[in-house]
Amino acid sequence: MAKGLSTQAASGFRDFTGAGAIQRLELMHRIAKVYTSFGFEALETPALENLKILQGSGGQENEKLIFKVLKRGEKLASSLSLGTPVENDLADLGLRFDLTVPLCRVVAEYQNEIKFPYKVFHIGPVWRAERPQRGRYREFVQCDVDIIGAEGWSAEVEVIQAVSEVFGQLGISDFGIKINHRKIIEALASRFGFADQIEEFAICLDKKDKLSKEKLLDEFLKIKSSIDHKNLEEFLDKGISLEEAVELDEDAAEILKKMSLSLTALNLKASEIKFDSSLVRGMGYYTGPVFELTHSTAGYALGGGGRYDKLIGRFLGKDLPAVGFSIGFERLLLLLEEMNLRVKESNKTLFIPVMSPELRLEVSKLAAQLREQGLSVDVYPDEAKLQKQLKFASAKDYRWVLFAGSEELSANQFQLKDFRDGKEEKLSVLEILNKLKI
Amino acid sequence: MAKGLSTQAASGFRDFTGAGAIQRLELMHRIAKVYTSFGFEALETPALENLKILQGSGGQENEKLIFKVLKRGEKLASSLSLGTPVENDLADLGLRFDLTVPLCRVVAEYQNEIKFPYKVFHIGPVWRAERPQRGRYREFVQCDVDIIGAEGWSAEVEVIQAVSEVFGQLGISDFGIKINHRKIIEALASRFGFADQIEEFAICLDKKDKLSKEKLLDEFLKIKSSIDHKNLEEFLDKGISLEEAVELDEDAAEILKKMSLSLTALNLKASEIKFDSSLVRGMGYYTGPVFELTHSTAGYALGGGGRYDKLIGRFLGKDLPAVGFSIGFERLLLLLEEMNLRVKESNKTLFIPVMSPELRLEVSKLAAQLREQGLSVDVYPDEAKLQKQLKFASAKDYRWVLFAGSEELSANQFQLKDFRDGKEEKLSVLEILNKLKI
Repeated sequence: MAKGLSTQAASGFRDFTGAGAIQRLELMHRIAKVYTSFGFEALETPALENLKILQGSGGQENEKLIFKVLKRGEKLASSLSLGTPVENDLADLGLRFDLTVPLCRVVAEYQNEIKFPYKVFHIGPVWRAERPQRGRYREFVQCDVDIIGAEGWSAEVEVIQAVSEVFGQLGISDFGIKINHRKIIEALASRFGFADQIEEFAICLDKKDKLSKEKLLDEFLKIKSSIDHKNLEEFLDKGISLEEAVELDEDAAEILKKMSLSLTALNLKASEIKFDSSLVRGMGYYTGPVFELTHSTAGYALGGGGRYDKLIGRFLGKDLPAVGFSIGFERLLLLLEEMNLRVKESNKTLFIPVMSPELRLEVSKLAAQLREQGLSVDVYPDEAKLQKQLKFASAKDYRWVLFAGSEELSANQFQLKDFRDGKEEKLSVLEILNKLKI
Repeated sequence: MAKGLSTQAASGFRDFTGAGAIQRLELMHRIAKVYTSFGFEALETPALENLKILQGSGGQENEKLIFKVLKRGEKLASSLSLGTPVENDLADLGLRFDLTVPLCRVVAEYQNEIKFPYKVFHIGPVWRAERPQRGRYREFVQCDVDIIGAEGWSAEVEVIQAVSEVFGQLGISDFGIKINHRKIIEALASRFGFADQIEEFAICLDKKDKLSKEKLLDEFLKIKSSIDHKNLEEFLDKGISLEEAVELDEDAAEILKKMSLSLTALNLKASEIKFDSSLVRGMGYYTGPVFELTHSTAGYALGGGGRYDKLIGRFLGKDLPAVGFSIGFERLLLLLEEMNLRVKESNKTLFIPVMSPELRLEVSKLAAQLREQGLSVDVYPDEAKLQKQLKFASAKDYRWVLFAGSEELSANQFQLKDFRDGKEEKLSVLEILNKLKI
């Protein structure tokens, strides 16, 4: 290995150590546990997909951000011998940019084995070749929960309920659920003169929270100059109520009303469930209700989803109704940190120094005995002076240290020190367990 | 998306659904939990590393199997304009082929923040561009546990103890731990006439279980014709005892004796701890004790590791002692399947059909109430006839179905059916919890 080589993670990528890493593992596990408790099945798909699956998959802008994997061996040699190879000649695989494309592929591939409605969750990293910048990473975790093969709005309610349960269990209660319906956005587009440019209208409306009203109106005017300017401006200012939405699309409004009533009655931990007529949720593949989870102290959505009844058809050859909700894992972690909430306490471990080398075996046995009862116990893994071992315990932020010298070991009475207040007490194994177990 | 496109996972890659996927998640979590209970810290590193980190990292054969990621944008254009670009001009990133290289990079990068001895575990997928064949995959999970910065054999004992605890907790007790020492292999090489070709001798000896004795001897003769043929043959037949090993390398044999005594005294779930003088453990970077976990019904090692005191130096610029043990996650899963052991029962879920659409909300509330008490409850997420809902429950292999019609809901008395014996009983919510909770 060349000297002077940087040992940083590659640009746009991150290492996670210590408490940060364990929080990630625990959060993923907690989310999986909640989804499992609703009867959702787990799904794991490979990081790499055939490039042809990823390209033209409906991933829109994200398709431009695919990390492509170089062909290997003879295939690469043959492509290189073409003279002026282009990108797609050189690569055959790509890293997935979301979890929806692999899910759709899986539904098509295993259509005969899957029990529909397929209630499924899918947690894992995705990769996008974004230009590295603050807060934007090239590898990040997504947590998707989907129901494939259910037509009605009950499926929407269930994924929202499951995601709300995740947030509730984490101790977050002051979050809101915004809902809207793609058909209402379409009707609004028509009302304001964008009947032929519904997609462009939606993309523009999606920028509402990022641009000033003036800039936003300019953007709309770029799409079409002959628009209903006054009414559009009023809409951008005030939005419309669900009652007004009835006039735009009765069926869509009716569904949102039913969803809203159900979600309210289910007593979710959400502080509000709100119709938001300007909620778009980026992806063009949504066909029905769309929704978003927001939090007052986070300036960004923590999750979003919606119904996408036409997407699976691209892989399956026939349409299959589908609805999904995706939690922004990295954003959720940031919020937990800001709120000072932990998925798992990291300093609950008991530390036992080895007072002299010949006591190591006895200490190891004691540690094993305590672990068997559910405690975490760290023993210093090398010969070292007591002071060095205690410095290690303090650097690892351990609160509890158990002193087990030869006398203590033979008497089965140990000195337990609480580093928070410096107090010590003499305890038996059973008493230690009672004191430290929760 | 083009019609007729294959929706299979890319060649050499796998999808995991249902019980298979949840077993994987639960096994990873269980392993992490055991390691945490020993005070090992979690580590998560990116899938992609700078190619320069992976190349020349001591990964030997595995370096040939790196999936390389195509450069992007202008950098790619500039490489392609070179006329006859070679592989390394076109790629700047690669998928990690093991977890040891990223660990060494992390130790070098965070040397000032890490608390040494660094007790760390690292679980995640790695990728190798192997030629796809039965039982060999291009993406598989590794579970490494390492101690960096401890010189003595106590660290070896601790990683072996931690890995044994994983197997024990999974209900596997009839596994064995084989131990050997790199210095003993080196001494054996000298004894049989390979003093100048120690590495080649080791690589050849490593094939002992795969080749017949005759073929193996031929391989040795290919390295060197003037060898101590008779004694080598006897060694291949019978090996040597730890007592005999003392004559080869007293210090190494002494360490193995101490390890063996400690491991035996610790009362691991292992059925035997055995010195095996022909154990090599592939990687050339091992410098001290090496070890392997075997199981009578599995024809392959389930894990392996050893001391590698010189490897981190390649990244750090100075040597740092290190020892690690890696569990073969995919092999462990296979063994669990063969032994019919489950990390988590998958059919513990209670299914509640929705008898008529207007009852859905009440059923959802009941389900939420039961989940809050720790049960998993699945509700059919769409309008459907009862028969269809029950078919769904049976396809998902659920044992328990709860009938909650309007009468039952108002009386708070429900009909619980056990699909294993077809018996039904009338129960209150509390009674259901008592019956189904463990």
